Amino acid sequence: MSDLQIRPAVAGDIPAIVALLADDPLGAQRESPDDLVPYLTAFERLAADPHQHPTVAVRDDRVVGTLQLTIVPGLSRRGATRSIIEAVRIHADERGSGLGSRLIEWAVEESRRLGCQLVQLTSDVTRTDAHRFYQRLGFQPSHVGFKLTL
Amino acid sequence: MSDLQIRPAVAGDIPAIVALLADDPLGAQRESPDDLVPYLTAFERLAADPHQHPTVAVRDDRVVGTLQLTIVPGLSRRGATRSIIEAVRIHADERGSGLGSRLIEWAVEESRRLGCQLVQLTSDVTRTDAHRFYQRLGFQPSHVGFKLTL
Repeated sequence: MSDLQIRPAVAGDIPAIVALLADDPLGAQRESPDDLVPYLTAFERLAADPHQHPTVAVRDDRVVGTLQLTIVPGLSRRGATRSIIEAVRIHADERGSGLGSRLIEWAVEESRRLGCQLVQLTSDVTRTDAHRFYQRLGFQPSHVGFKLTL
Repeated sequence: MSDLQIRPAVAGDIPAIVALLADDPLGAQRESPDDLVPYLTAFERLAADPHQHPTVAVRDDRVVGTLQLTIVPGLSRRGATRSIIEAVRIHADERGSGLGSRLIEWAVEESRRLGCQLVQLTSDVTRTDAHRFYQRLGFQPSHVGFKLTL
């Protein structure tokens, strides 16, 4: 396989990112790849916030993975800054290729570079394969993740 | 009891916030209330980021509760913006008084006002009382929360 590039997402990546978000058992129910307007609007919010790092993995000019890294300063843990990883998706063609590990390892290194002392993420309780994957990468399942839809 | 005020934290609140963070079975091991310098530095980072809302609950000029609300734009869920609640602490004198519910309900309302479609938080697996508390407030324990310390 040819070289992989991991870089900041740009507006032109939105169709490919949304296709990845939707190609997923949970995402299929909550994304609308036929209507990109809300995603383009949201991308403007992301682009305006220097603590948001929407990211793509690209191979042969094709977006094959994505995640969003967010930097969150805080007071707890002696004023620790943490990063949060959200919306991790790997193209079906690339699953099992090690791309997921490379993307998460990139996010961990980027978090370190940006001064974070902690990286955190949540994963739906039904994604048991993902849970094993994160534990292999050194993440501890130390918390329960709660959500409230407004 | 006299009226409660919920307001943005200011630098002068840091000693009281750190005392709350440390007065906790987990916080006792990871906070340093005798050295406020890292907290004051961290507060400057929070104050410089318009998406961070460090918050205190005050009664009779005394900080009796705190939380941090963070607004995170995103692409997933049709470009949903979510909020994240971190570092929730209630003074020992006020536990069981309903202050925790008032503070979380405030954070939910503030999230709605700021355009969020989702509120999320994680809670250490050992905090089983907190888990029941969040479920009573409508939060679903739908996720596993992973952390990696750098």
